Amino acid sequence: MLCKGGLMPSTSIEMTSLSAAWAPVVRRPLEADQASAFAPMFKALGDPVRLRLLSMIASAGGGEVCVCDLTGSFKLTGPTISHHLKVLREAGLVDSDRRGTWVYYRLVPAALVLLTGLLDITSAAATN
Amino acid sequence: MLCKGGLMPSTSIEMTSLSAAWAPVVRRPLEADQASAFAPMFKALGDPVRLRLLSMIASAGGGEVCVCDLTGSFKLTGPTISHHLKVLREAGLVDSDRRGTWVYYRLVPAALVLLTGLLDITSAAATN
Repeated sequence: MLCKGGLMPSTSIEMTSLSAAWAPVVRRPLEADQASAFAPMFKALGDPVRLRLLSMIASAGGGEVCVCDLTGSFKLTGPTISHHLKVLREAGLVDSDRRGTWVYYRLVPAALVLLTGLLDITSAAATN
Repeated sequence: MLCKGGLMPSTSIEMTSLSAAWAPVVRRPLEADQASAFAPMFKALGDPVRLRLLSMIASAGGGEVCVCDLTGSFKLTGPTISHHLKVLREAGLVDSDRRGTWVYYRLVPAALVLLTGLLDITSAAATN
């Protein structure tokens, strides 16, 4: 089971609030500051384009994807794609590196572990 | 592991798009229609008040919560709380019944199973 607290994607400012203990939603109500820390991550996923981008980055064979390989799947401009990627990055869901001309994106697995831990319904009967 | 497709919370219109097969994001990119079906659920969770409301409903001992027991935890009006609960309900995350004066809310566990299945990073090595 996911431990409470302690898992903080490095790229998210809000995530510092999650250093305090939290529990899966089926076990205990979230405190206001905890909800404020988690909400931006869900909000970032609450857009179809960003959700597709995340899935393309997360399922990339080599562990990272060049932004040049992401844009072709959408009828959107480069700046629009870059904006959506920035939202994902600021939410701590992906990280990026610029190498030469291109920016490369990779998943922050700890962020998904955090979200699945929060929504895990199997932890209802666990001890606190 | 969560099976692909088939798990559809009864209250969400968008979720009908999820009758088509989908896979966890670490395994395969989402199709546009699949992303459009999942995104409203994440968007509903992308607000601190709604996330707190969901956690209060999900962790309720009796399996359901009267709206009268939810409003006291927020410095918000009744109609505002009701609006947030409506968003959660329309996203298929909670369901509700009116009994007498009050409306009672309960979690739709299948919705959380669906979201945790989508974000499950442990399924990366599973066969398709």
